Amino acid sequence: MEHILGYVAIAAGLIIGLGAVGACIGIGIMGSKYLEASARQPELMNALQTKMFLLAGLIDAAFLIGVGIAMMFAFANPFVLQ
Amino acid sequence: MEHILGYVAIAAGLIIGLGAVGACIGIGIMGSKYLEASARQPELMNALQTKMFLLAGLIDAAFLIGVGIAMMFAFANPFVLQ
Amino acid sequence: MEHILGYVAIAAGLIIGLGAVGACIGIGIMGSKYLEASARQPELMNALQTKMFLLAGLIDAAFLIGVGIAMMFAFANPFVLQ
Amino acid sequence: MEHILGYVAIAAGLIIGLGAVGACIGIGIMGSKYLEASARQPELMNALQTKMFLLAGLIDAAFLIGVGIAMMFAFANPFVLQ
Amino acid sequence: MEHILGYVAIAAGLIIGLGAVGACIGIGIMGSKYLEASARQPELMNALQTKMFLLAGLIDAAFLIGVGIAMMFAFANPFVLQ
Amino acid sequence: MEHILGYVAIAAGLIIGLGAVGACIGIGIMGSKYLEASARQPELMNALQTKMFLLAGLIDAAFLIGVGIAMMFAFANPFVLQ
Amino acid sequence: MEHILGYVAIAAGLIIGLGAVGACIGIGIMGSKYLEASARQPELMNALQTKMFLLAGLIDAAFLIGVGIAMMFAFANPFVLQ
Amino acid sequence: MEHILGYVAIAAGLIIGLGAVGACIGIGIMGSKYLEASARQPELMNALQTKMFLLAGLIDAAFLIGVGIAMMFAFANPFVLQ
Amino acid sequence: MEHILGYVAIAAGLIIGLGAVGACIGIGIMGSKYLEASARQPELMNALQTKMFLLAGLIDAAFLIGVGIAMMFAFANPFVLQ
Amino acid sequence: MEHILGYVAIAAGLIIGLGAVGACIGIGIMGSKYLEASARQPELMNALQTKMFLLAGLIDAAFLIGVGIAMMFAFANPFVLQ
Amino acid sequence: MEHILGYVAIAAGLIIGLGAVGACIGIGIMGSKYLEASARQPELMNALQTKMFLLAGLIDAAFLIGVGIAMMFAFANPFVLQ
Amino acid sequence: MEHILGYVAIAAGLIIGLGAVGACIGIGIMGSKYLEASARQPELMNALQTKMFLLAGLIDAAFLIGVGIAMMFAFANPFVLQ
Amino acid sequence: MEHILGYVAIAAGLIIGLGAVGACIGIGIMGSKYLEASARQPELMNALQTKMFLLAGLIDAAFLIGVGIAMMFAFANPFVLQ
Amino acid sequence: MEHILGYVAIAAGLIIGLGAVGACIGIGIMGSKYLEASARQPELMNALQTKMFLLAGLIDAAFLIGVGIAMMFAFANPFVLQ
Repeated sequence: MEHILGYVAIAAGLIIGLGAVGACIGIGIMGSKYLEASARQPELMNALQTKMFLLAGLIDAAFLIGVGIAMMFAFANPFVLQ
Repeated sequence: MEHILGYVAIAAGLIIGLGAVGACIGIGIMGSKYLEASARQPELMNALQTKMFLLAGLIDAAFLIGVGIAMMFAFANPFVLQ
Repeated sequence: MEHILGYVAIAAGLIIGLGAVGACIGIGIMGSKYLEASARQPELMNALQTKMFLLAGLIDAAFLIGVGIAMMFAFANPFVLQ
Repeated sequence: MEHILGYVAIAAGLIIGLGAVGACIGIGIMGSKYLEASARQPELMNALQTKMFLLAGLIDAAFLIGVGIAMMFAFANPFVLQ
Repeated sequence: MEHILGYVAIAAGLIIGLGAVGACIGIGIMGSKYLEASARQPELMNALQTKMFLLAGLIDAAFLIGVGIAMMFAFANPFVLQ
Repeated sequence: MEHILGYVAIAAGLIIGLGAVGACIGIGIMGSKYLEASARQPELMNALQTKMFLLAGLIDAAFLIGVGIAMMFAFANPFVLQ
Repeated sequence: MEHILGYVAIAAGLIIGLGAVGACIGIGIMGSKYLEASARQPELMNALQTKMFLLAGLIDAAFLIGVGIAMMFAFANPFVLQ
Repeated sequence: MEHILGYVAIAAGLIIGLGAVGACIGIGIMGSKYLEASARQPELMNALQTKMFLLAGLIDAAFLIGVGIAMMFAFANPFVLQ
Repeated sequence: MEHILGYVAIAAGLIIGLGAVGACIGIGIMGSKYLEASARQPELMNALQTKMFLLAGLIDAAFLIGVGIAMMFAFANPFVLQ
Repeated sequence: MEHILGYVAIAAGLIIGLGAVGACIGIGIMGSKYLEASARQPELMNALQTKMFLLAGLIDAAFLIGVGIAMMFAFANPFVLQ
Repeated sequence: MEHILGYVAIAAGLIIGLGAVGACIGIGIMGSKYLEASARQPELMNALQTKMFLLAGLIDAAFLIGVGIAMMFAFANPFVLQ
Repeated sequence: MEHILGYVAIAAGLIIGLGAVGACIGIGIMGSKYLEASARQPELMNALQTKMFLLAGLIDAAFLIGVGIAMMFAFANPFVLQ
Repeated sequence: MEHILGYVAIAAGLIIGLGAVGACIGIGIMGSKYLEASARQPELMNALQTKMFLLAGLIDAAFLIGVGIAMMFAFANPFVLQ
Repeated sequence: MEHILGYVAIAAGLIIGLGAVGACIGIGIMGSKYLEASARQPELMNALQTKMFLLAGLIDAAFLIGVGIAMMFAFANPFVLQ
């Protein structure tokens, strides 16, 4: 039993760690473009903000799905019920 | 039995982790281009948004297929039924 | 028997994980070019969309072939029948 | 019991370490763009600052979710209760 | 016997996984160039599309040859007949 | 007991080491932009400095949270109390 | 006997996998240049196509030589006859 | 006892080594920008120098925090007192 | 005897695999330059083609020498005759 | 006792080796900028030299702190006194 | 005896494999420059070709010296005569 | 005793090898800038040469400090006297 | 005795293999610059060729010194005489 | 005794191999700049050549110091005299 749990823990760490790196850098790239566009056309700042939140939500979605699955691995471990 | 389950857990972690990185960065690249194009032609902002959602869906598709398969590995493990 | 199954599981994880990364980034690159071209020539937006779907299909094809083979490895494992 | 705890500790280290790298570099990229935009349009400095904080919050969110989960792994270890 | 089969499975995974990454990114690069060229000369869109399919076929050829060989390894394993 | 402590020490080293690299390079990128902007608009040097400190604080925040958690791992080791 | 066969299988996997990546990306680079040149001088499209096939043949040659050798390793394994 | 001390030593080496690389390269990037800005506006050389020291202090801060913690690991090893 | 043969097989795989990657990408780079030059000066297309074949021969030479040596390792294994 | 000393030696090697790489490349980047600036404004050559030494000192500081700590590890090994 | 021969075989594989990659890519870079220069000054095509062969010879020299040494390792193994 | 000496030898190899790479590339970057600046302003060739030697000395300093420490490890090994 | 010889063989392989890669790519970079310069000033072609040989000699020197030392390791192995 | 000698041999291989790569690429970068500068100002060709030799000497110095130390490790092994 022990070995499965250890491997599952590392799998959860991989999912969340890799996802966090991807989400942080992805939002960083997208956000720097948002600031640049806002500074060039200040009258569009609010219109673009709506889009920016939408994009941030799409990027975070992949990360949060991973987090949800890692939580499921931790609390309702499907591997030990088999 | 134990070793198969441990390897399957790590395989699931690889699928979801790598997929999340790819999806986050892919949407980040695509979205920064969307914001740039919107700021240059504000009158196209809504027309382009439809296309952007469509592209985000195509990118997420590959990620979600991977997630679905990883779930199947976890709950209806095809390797232990053999 | 156990060792073969464990190795096959990891092989399936490699196929799907690497394929998902490739598909996500590939569609991301192609899609950002689509948005840029659409913003420059809005009258071509629908003509280009047809081509874009076609390209997305070609990119996803390689990923889905890999998924199909990984499924076959999981359910009709050719290695344990030998 | 020992082995699970060791693997969980390393998983927590991976989550926080990778997340910190991602957050630091992400905010660095985004912030350097903020300074550049502020220097070009000083009259927008405060308007852009609001957006910058908002983006920093979005970037830190992914990091802090990871930290929260790592804390949960450390104090209410879900793997040893099973 | 067992060890050969395990190694052959991983070899098949390597062939298909690496090939899928290469094909996805290769078509992505080539396709983004196609969209760019089509947007600049819309009257050439169909003439170029023929060439694009041809190139996609050439790129997929290398991937599909690899898939075919991996299938042969799985079903008519040449290593266990020796 | 020994093995858990050794793994926890390495986890702490990973958290602080990776965090320090990220923070140093992040501030380096952001600061070089600050100097460039200051040299171009000397009259904004102090206004931008306030923003620069603010950004340095945001970047260091992720690093310091990691340091804090590593300290907690070292002194009030949550893994050995379980 | 077993160990040789396992190593030979992995060697075959390396040859085909690495060759497929190289061929896919090489044709992708060459083909994107072909499309760009065709869009700029449409009257040369067919003259260049002949050259493009020729180059694709040269690129695939290296890949197919590798595939041939891997097949020989699999069916007429020179290492087990010694 | 021995194993913990060995792992702690390597953890300390990782912290200081990675931190030194980050600090050296970070100050190198920032300083080359300082020299460039000074050569373009010699009248700002001293004003910018104050800012440069300030930034160097911020960059070294992360490195020195890591050094301090590594020293604490070496002399007042928190892992062996538990 | 067995171990030598296994190592020799992997050495042959390394030689051919690495050589194929190098040759594919090298011809890809050289060929894309050929197409670009041909499109700019169509009157030189045949003169340049001679040179292109010559260069492709030089590039393939290194690859084919490696293949020849790998074949010699496989059929007239110099290591087992000693 | 032996194992601790061996690990401490490798830790010292990591600290000095990584630090030397960082310092050499950091000064190389900074110095090439100094020469460029000097060639463009020869009348500033001495004023910039003062700044260049100052920056070289800041870069070497991180390296020398690491060397000092490695020396302490070697002569007054804090790990073997515990 | 066996172990030395196995290691020598892998050393030979490393020498030839790495050398082939270097030679292929080196000639690829040099040759693409040759084609570009020939297309710009067609009257120099033959004068430059002499130089190109000379350079290809210099690049292949390093590769062929490595091949010669690897052959010597294989046939007149200096390590087993000691 | 043996193990400590072996680890110390590898540590010395790491210090000198990494330092040599850093110094060679650092001086290469700095020197190519020196030649470029000299060719643009020949009247400054000697004035810049003084600065170039000075910078080369600063870059080599970090390398030579590492060499000195490695020598000390080899001849007056501080780890075996404890 | 056996283990020393095996390690020495791998050390020789590393020296020659890495040196060959470096020499091939270094001459490739230098030679492509030579061809470009010759095509721009054909009257300097022979004057520059002298310099090019000189540089090729300097680059090959480092490679050949390594080859010489590897030969010495193979034939007059200094490690087995001790 | 055996283990120390084997590790020392690998350390010598690392020093020379890494140093050769660094020296080859460093001189390649520096030399391509020399040829470019000579082609632009042919009247400076000999003045710059003196400087080029001087720089090549500085770059080779770091490599040759490493070679000298590796020789000393091989013939007057300081580790076996202790």
